[in-house]
Amino acid sequence: MISTSSKSDRFRRQTAQLDLPPRVLLGPGPANVHPRVLTAMSTPPVGHLDPTFLAVMDEIQDLLRYAWQTENELTIAVSGTGSAAMEATLANVVEPEDVVLVGVKGYFGNRLVDMASRYGADVRTISKPWGQVFDLAEIKTALETHRPKILALVHAETSTGVKQPLEGLGELCQQYDCLLLVDTVTSLGGVPLSIDQSGIDLAYSCSQKGLGCPPGASPFTMSAKAIDKLNSRRTPVANWYLDMSLLSKYWGSERVYHHTAPINLYYGLREALRLVAEEGLEKRWQRHQTNAELLWQGLAELNLVCHVEQQYRLPTLTTVRIPDGVDGKAIAGKLLNEYNIEIAGGLGELGGKVWRIGLMGYNSRPENVILLLNALKQVLYF
Amino acid sequence: MISTSSKSDRFRRQTAQLDLPPRVLLGPGPANVHPRVLTAMSTPPVGHLDPTFLAVMDEIQDLLRYAWQTENELTIAVSGTGSAAMEATLANVVEPEDVVLVGVKGYFGNRLVDMASRYGADVRTISKPWGQVFDLAEIKTALETHRPKILALVHAETSTGVKQPLEGLGELCQQYDCLLLVDTVTSLGGVPLSIDQSGIDLAYSCSQKGLGCPPGASPFTMSAKAIDKLNSRRTPVANWYLDMSLLSKYWGSERVYHHTAPINLYYGLREALRLVAEEGLEKRWQRHQTNAELLWQGLAELNLVCHVEQQYRLPTLTTVRIPDGVDGKAIAGKLLNEYNIEIAGGLGELGGKVWRIGLMGYNSRPENVILLLNALKQVLYF
Repeated sequence: MISTSSKSDRFRRQTAQLDLPPRVLLGPGPANVHPRVLTAMSTPPVGHLDPTFLAVMDEIQDLLRYAWQTENELTIAVSGTGSAAMEATLANVVEPEDVVLVGVKGYFGNRLVDMASRYGADVRTISKPWGQVFDLAEIKTALETHRPKILALVHAETSTGVKQPLEGLGELCQQYDCLLLVDTVTSLGGVPLSIDQSGIDLAYSCSQKGLGCPPGASPFTMSAKAIDKLNSRRTPVANWYLDMSLLSKYWGSERVYHHTAPINLYYGLREALRLVAEEGLEKRWQRHQTNAELLWQGLAELNLVCHVEQQYRLPTLTTVRIPDGVDGKAIAGKLLNEYNIEIAGGLGELGGKVWRIGLMGYNSRPENVILLLNALKQVLYF
Repeated sequence: MISTSSKSDRFRRQTAQLDLPPRVLLGPGPANVHPRVLTAMSTPPVGHLDPTFLAVMDEIQDLLRYAWQTENELTIAVSGTGSAAMEATLANVVEPEDVVLVGVKGYFGNRLVDMASRYGADVRTISKPWGQVFDLAEIKTALETHRPKILALVHAETSTGVKQPLEGLGELCQQYDCLLLVDTVTSLGGVPLSIDQSGIDLAYSCSQKGLGCPPGASPFTMSAKAIDKLNSRRTPVANWYLDMSLLSKYWGSERVYHHTAPINLYYGLREALRLVAEEGLEKRWQRHQTNAELLWQGLAELNLVCHVEQQYRLPTLTTVRIPDGVDGKAIAGKLLNEYNIEIAGGLGELGGKVWRIGLMGYNSRPENVILLLNALKQVLYF
């Protein structure tokens, strides 16, 4: 018999069956999920080396290549949330003393700075006020000045609602022989984007925004040029879990065990990516744009001002200035508690100054726009 | 309108609805999952800062404290699989030049060596043949010789099926003023274990074995003494995603955003931990032991030999020697293809020499033992 003499029941907490409110998630993500994705996620797991699971992984890779418009062989889902995929891009190519130039125009630019520093990079930054974008000339000047090995930019800044134009960046980076690293967390699946046409060498995203899947398995892609830098490292990748020299052997034809994949999340991600392929990228991008414009128009009718100039606004995430005298947090609280609608406040510099409203993936639907606008009208003006 | 001129449909793969075989997972994990866990996982997500989700996180923390028998405040689930939680233990407390002593007696001991090296540790090792355990005197001698800051040992070696006795280790580590780090990946929820009584400072586990949950959210715990080492670091934690100085502010009362938690996995983990609390640890440990003994007896009747001496055998994972002249891979393939039963071959040194049979969590049931033994009999002898 097993000894039980001194076992403690102190934390043997009595809990009820999971019982959560039916939220409409119109913040910066997670967004609500298509019922087909939830059903797929609840499929009983098979093993992470089962031939049937390896086929699921292959399908995820192809469907991700479609969604991202890339032919990169190393296009996979990292077994963590978007921040893990973000860290994976830096961890694999940054070696101590490498100059990394980061364009900071919001919270996630700062996160790139923090992460790159931890891998020993010589980090240089250029900055813009939160809500603005960089123009090509500024970036060219900075490349000329800093001669970085990597230029890191956020395509869709979740903290500001800004869409950074990518035109011309690939050519510039080729000219200055540096890798182009782009955060597509809030653009993949909702905003026009082509990794290969834009000359992007490293990109990451998440599952819970434009792709409409729960969080936890996160898209990652790396060009042949970036792989060359990985292969010519003088030091091992300083992060075991995210080491692509090991992970590529599990996702590639060798099928060498690295870690146990989050099986059920991959089921969900596969279903979410199937939905993207079924809808088609043009239609999906157009849907996001149309519903965002509907939102912007309605906000204007409520005398609310968008923080970002229209041409640089993300269709997936809109920042709205909190009017003078209005308690932004109280309004968001009312939406949540009275109408089960989640929107978010600002992050970092924009804390207390804006609300963040997301229309992402499955949630980018006109009924959600109408619901939100009318609920907002109620809590603001009645 | 959005330009669609140059979009490629090359990877817009036609895929069918997910359709996977009904595997009985009797390998080293993942194991099958209680239907209640799958149902919980398919609950529509709420936001990662929603008050109702924060309550779910609190429940997970308490239920994990119960399962691990610890009062450690920093007891959380890392947003990755077991290997991420493993890396988290080292990343947070290892600083460059720290002496880390690793007891290597299997594949996962080697992984600890690899990971600790990447964080700049001065790694020392002691070794045992795969299938044996360390005794206290050997460890004492090694502590005396190497004077490490951290002693790392694997409680339940998934590659060998060995259970390392933990008695006396806590006192030894206190005497030599070093932190005790223990891998409990294949023991938590299935093998008697008390973090606090054993004087363990750092431990990690996974969700897909003894806890009977899909993989992807992994238990991590850290004592006050280990937190002191974290707080007195001269260098930042060299891993952003797993940095406990940041993560503890999300799981603690401050609720500062760090990353978007894998919401639905936490729903599943909560339900799996509820099942542990409902059953009670003594009963659960006893169930694992009873079913393992049933398996061992049946294997002996089939003239199969367990690789590990009975007193050191894990109830969760049994290594069985492949008889001379038998093609181990072919037998496992037949079990999978003819009976939908997954068992695994050996890892590393034991590759080709043993099969690994798991009876973990929900799968530790007499009907699985009978099924496996009779299927094995068929494919071996008929």
